[in-house]
Amino acid sequence: MGSSHQLEPPSGTRDFLAPELRHRERAFATIRDVFERYGFGPLQTPAFERIEVLTGKYGDEGDKLIFKILRRGEHEASGEADLALRYDLTVPLARVVATYGSRLPSPYKRYAIAPVWRADRPGKGRFREFVQCDLDVVGSTSPLSDAETVSAVSDALDALGLRRYRFLLNSRRALAGLLESYNVPEALGGRALITLDKLDKVDSAEVAAELEQRGLHPTTAKSLVTDLTAEDSVARMRAALGGSEQGREGLAEIDEVLGLVSDRIGEDRIAFTPRMVRGLDYYTGIIWEVVAADMPGSIASGGRYDGLVESLGGPKLPACGGSLGVERILALTAGAEQESDGLDVAVTVIEAPRPELLAVAGDLRDAGWRTGTYLGGSGKLAKQLRWAADQGARFSVIYGADERAAGEVTIRDMTTGEQTRVPIHGVAGHLGRRGTG
Amino acid sequence: MGSSHQLEPPSGTRDFLAPELRHRERAFATIRDVFERYGFGPLQTPAFERIEVLTGKYGDEGDKLIFKILRRGEHEASGEADLALRYDLTVPLARVVATYGSRLPSPYKRYAIAPVWRADRPGKGRFREFVQCDLDVVGSTSPLSDAETVSAVSDALDALGLRRYRFLLNSRRALAGLLESYNVPEALGGRALITLDKLDKVDSAEVAAELEQRGLHPTTAKSLVTDLTAEDSVARMRAALGGSEQGREGLAEIDEVLGLVSDRIGEDRIAFTPRMVRGLDYYTGIIWEVVAADMPGSIASGGRYDGLVESLGGPKLPACGGSLGVERILALTAGAEQESDGLDVAVTVIEAPRPELLAVAGDLRDAGWRTGTYLGGSGKLAKQLRWAADQGARFSVIYGADERAAGEVTIRDMTTGEQTRVPIHGVAGHLGRRGTG
Repeated sequence: MGSSHQLEPPSGTRDFLAPELRHRERAFATIRDVFERYGFGPLQTPAFERIEVLTGKYGDEGDKLIFKILRRGEHEASGEADLALRYDLTVPLARVVATYGSRLPSPYKRYAIAPVWRADRPGKGRFREFVQCDLDVVGSTSPLSDAETVSAVSDALDALGLRRYRFLLNSRRALAGLLESYNVPEALGGRALITLDKLDKVDSAEVAAELEQRGLHPTTAKSLVTDLTAEDSVARMRAALGGSEQGREGLAEIDEVLGLVSDRIGEDRIAFTPRMVRGLDYYTGIIWEVVAADMPGSIASGGRYDGLVESLGGPKLPACGGSLGVERILALTAGAEQESDGLDVAVTVIEAPRPELLAVAGDLRDAGWRTGTYLGGSGKLAKQLRWAADQGARFSVIYGADERAAGEVTIRDMTTGEQTRVPIHGVAGHLGRRGTG
Repeated sequence: MGSSHQLEPPSGTRDFLAPELRHRERAFATIRDVFERYGFGPLQTPAFERIEVLTGKYGDEGDKLIFKILRRGEHEASGEADLALRYDLTVPLARVVATYGSRLPSPYKRYAIAPVWRADRPGKGRFREFVQCDLDVVGSTSPLSDAETVSAVSDALDALGLRRYRFLLNSRRALAGLLESYNVPEALGGRALITLDKLDKVDSAEVAAELEQRGLHPTTAKSLVTDLTAEDSVARMRAALGGSEQGREGLAEIDEVLGLVSDRIGEDRIAFTPRMVRGLDYYTGIIWEVVAADMPGSIASGGRYDGLVESLGGPKLPACGGSLGVERILALTAGAEQESDGLDVAVTVIEAPRPELLAVAGDLRDAGWRTGTYLGGSGKLAKQLRWAADQGARFSVIYGADERAAGEVTIRDMTTGEQTRVPIHGVAGHLGRRGTG
């Protein structure tokens, strides 16, 4: 460990010291609590999988980003890899569903909040180790499972203290119906959607031009873009979708989910958004995305993907779910915390450490107070009180010769400087239980 | 994913489904809570480190057990590794202390509960991915830091519900003094201790023979073994240690820690144990081990290691700490849990899912109840109630045509079968808050 470069954690990874880690863990606990109340159960899979479980599942670009682990023992010299760090939480879910089958509850509602690893080029907000947060319902075609997933995500965002967010709701079936209504040849559909997905970021004329380039008739391209970006785009789309069976089905599932959740989420926070196209092509029904004020892109997304579990090596089961972009959300909520991360009570040690002071500390800890004892080398009270202040302590316990002779301690309020003498066995009684005193 | 073998998690790793994972997470939360009350803060480092940070730190045997990660991109074909999965939590701690230095509190009291990875041969109770649980105080020579570490571990074991455990306490300095008192040449000391460490498992005569083999005088070997295994071994050792300066210092530090903690831990639960020799040679002062009834080996251990942080590439700082064998402890406490892991309330859906039922579910969730809605395909109440029972639900909510007409729901107590009609907006009010109702 010579150069200072080598002291840093590996490129794209982070050390989390106490204050930030507590903030993260509190957020994860908040999310977990919401998901549990929705009846989702936790799942934890190993950090690595057999390499063949992961490769070929994420496309060529994805495969290159998989961290591969060297075969060990005498095979190590071959340079061959037999294990790989998990790249997401979905492929391990598919493996678990395949492995445990009927031993899992049906439908299987699980959540996972865990790190994944990608050998991506590190950059601002892009890490090689980051936490994903997924919830999925495997084995149900009920629209209620789509609605409950959306509702759970909304509750989680509320619980995290986010206020200014909106759900954009759409359906792959509606999108297919849309293309049908505008007479887009089926062969061009997929590419057309990828282009339409750019309406958020790119100028309308540019999107129309790209649609033409992809083979759409100029009139079709223009009217699609015009109708999708119009003020009354929802009305135009509802009208257009009525002309196609797929379109009507898509509209019906959108309206059903809207009807189920809008009471809970609030009608101003969720809306049918015809031009919202999730880039990934494994979605088969409802799709949704959450956007937040002051944050480009989405902070959560999901939908229905009835073919995904099977395509990842699991059994043929319908599924829907969602993912919270927790790293982005943590960036939004950072600094919002007011709670102190330091000590509640600092116990000073004027002369030698004495068993009765450990008893005082023990009583305080039993009452829930975060209590530290002075472990430094100074015998001076002033220096020890300086340490107590540095630790953020609300109270200090002082036990000098005077106090000792009287069987008492002095409790010093570190904010006001006020000092109170109490019997040595009465400290915890005097301060009460943490949070109630 | 063809053969069933490939569906299993990689050899030596485990999938944790909801009930077991909840048991583990509860235990970790219990430990974390105790450590926090002692004023320790959490630390989380990346799953992998630069390979040069890890290699050479664990001896030749340890090096072989490090999981190495292939260099990526165009270098991948070289078969070279540049990263490695963390092997323990101590080397990352040393790196963090080196990296952040004075930005850390002083002394730096941290805990970490996190997986580590070792390419060990998997076996009963031996995993390639397992959780370690460490707490350390870096930067204090105060015996109070040894005492607080021991006390925190004891509190954690109590909080986990362990009853029948004992601390064995000793000191490396006392052991050095012991060898001095018995005239063991200094050059033979280390090896003699390794042999003495076997007194737990191996016959006394065999240990004496091995000591002779290692070069000790036969009389010395015999009297050492006799005195260490005698009924009154503690008295004999106290007498012997008095004859050496190191021995007296060792005894003094043992007695100081005993004096500080025995009130909290109980004198029957911690004792000076002269023949307890921690195998690792990095300890420099106090050493301790916790043994449990019905469990061979130790369930926790630790001590003072003033040279370790520096030898691992960190700055020269005194340190002490300990480690809970959480995987072994979890095995001891498994099955002790009685709490249900299923649903609290199951909301049935007789006809189509309706928004007002989601509102009922939402109210219940807000009141802390783990609430699931029926996501299956059956419209039959009997089948839905069977699902509710399978989920372990304490109550079911029924909303048929009758209830709908009356603006009510039926709450069914799944244990007694008793049914009560309440207004649809009064369900959560009727059941109260979870845990208080």
